[in-house]
This record gives sequence, C-alpha cells and structure tokens, in this order.
Amino acid sequence: MQDNSTETRRMEQRVSLITLGVPDMEVAAAFYEQLGWQRCDSPDGVVAFDLISQTLGLYPLAALAEDIGLPVEQLGHGAMTLSHNTRTVAEVAQLMAAAEAAGATVLRPAGEVFWGGTIGYFRAPDGHIWEIAHNPFSPLAENGAFRWNGHDG
Amino acid sequence: MQDNSTETRRMEQRVSLITLGVPDMEVAAAFYEQLGWQRCDSPDGVVAFDLISQTLGLYPLAALAEDIGLPVEQLGHGAMTLSHNTRTVAEVAQLMAAAEAAGATVLRPAGEVFWGGTIGYFRAPDGHIWEIAHNPFSPLAENGAFRWNGHDG
Repeated sequence: MQDNSTETRRMEQRVSLITLGVPDMEVAAAFYEQLGWQRCDSPDGVVAFDLISQTLGLYPLAALAEDIGLPVEQLGHGAMTLSHNTRTVAEVAQLMAAAEAAGATVLRPAGEVFWGGTIGYFRAPDGHIWEIAHNPFSPLAENGAFRWNGHDG
Repeated sequence: MQDNSTETRRMEQRVSLITLGVPDMEVAAAFYEQLGWQRCDSPDGVVAFDLISQTLGLYPLAALAEDIGLPVEQLGHGAMTLSHNTRTVAEVAQLMAAAEAAGATVLRPAGEVFWGGTIGYFRAPDGHIWEIAHNPFSPLAENGAFRWNGHDG
C-alpha cells in the first residue's frame, strides 16, 4: 500500500477564524459591542463576531492555553496586530475616539504617516493591539474588502 | 460651527490586514511560500499574501514596535491564534505534516476533540500559533469562506 501521507499539501490562502485569548469574556465582548459589533450564534463558551468571510472569536485565555497545550505565560509570543481600514481620513480619528470611549488605550493617536496614509493604534481592553488606518492608495471594495492594490468597485 | 468629532462611530465588522511582526522577513516568508502561498505586490519592506477579502502581511518586529510606539518586549501581550479550517478530516494531518516539513513546531498533533472536530496546533517559525481544524458542523463555502453556522454553497 502506498503511503501518500507525507506529500506536501498546498494550504489555501485564507484565515477562517481569528481567536483572541482574553482574560474576561464579557469585558472583552462589551468593548466590541460598544463599537457597534453584533454577536453571531456560536458554540457555548465562545463569543463570536462574523466578519467578511471569516469569524473573530473571543475565548478565555486559560482555555486557549489549555487547548493549545502551553502555559498561559507562553502564549502571545510574537506580535500580531489587526488593522481596520476606513473609507475616509476622518473616520480614523472618529474610530480612535470611539475605541477610547469604549475603554481602549490609545497607543498612537490618529495622524498622517510618511507614506501618505493616516493611522492610529489602540490597545483593546482585552490586551490586543488594533490599527485604524486610511490608505488613500487602497480604496476598499463596497463591502469593505481590502487589497493593497485597491478595488474597482 | 458644530463639532461632531466625539460622536460614536460604528466600526464595521471586518479586519483588513493581519500583520505578523516577525524577527526575520525572509525566513518567515519562506515558511508560508513552502505551504504554497504566493506573495502579492506590496509596499517595500512588507511581504504580503492576499487572503479572502483581506491581506496577511509580514513586517519586521522592530519596525512594528516602532510603528506602534512600544518596546519590542511589550508586543505580543494577549494571545491570538489564526485558524485555517479544512474541507476534509484528512487535510488536518496533511497540513500539519506540511507545516512541520516547512519548519513549524507541532504543539498539538492532529486529533479528534470532544466537540466532534479534528484539530492540530503548530507554531510557525515566526513564532505565531496556527490551528488547523476540520469542523464537520461548519462546512466551508466553495471559495473557502467560513461561518460557524456553515454555508450552503
């Protein structure tokens, strides 16, 4: 019998689920809800928000560590940020203010950057770092989809 | 003149860009390329892969820290994982093997879990943690899009 198990598989270029390990589920969820996000149905013990073609899930930090099989203090190595691109320049400051009002800590206030965009960074109450960005060279698709090369429609 | 700048803005439910802060750009990029991913055009100093409706970018850890305005050692607080859901059970072990062959460290080998799915976790050479998962209750859309409630097509 031939064993094909070691063949190299191509991994499709997509992320199904972004999981944020959070210290307090309801505190974490309240932040995103205050920004206007709406929960979708999800398994018990998970709070989930449907994004475009993927889902962002909140999951207890301890449970995530147990799920992976690492001590909590070994999670979060490496740095990862989530960027939310806006349709207009004005929205960057507006969303930064909305995030601050919802309990975020501003790490870098909204402002122009050398490449011609406008960005700001905040740390959500759950500890994760978000960027709010307007990139004049990468207009969003009507449904909000992002490509660095931009969208036509 | 009325000042509307403090009005609460609704943030649309989407992530434009997932940015991985990485110690070595070419080492990090080689890993994803070995899994079959193809770079798209991107600004100088960034390696980017187009996903569904969003982009995953690799960016030097030190530059990301500088961009945010935090010391490198303060990045990565909080835990975040990226999940890649598969179309079949068999693909979970296959993609875990492909990732290991590409230089990843297996944290949890592919196996069935209590809720009826099959999952595995690996740490990419860039330090970030990925889950490969098959969820029999959430079939993917034809284009790979994910919803916990599944897709019809």
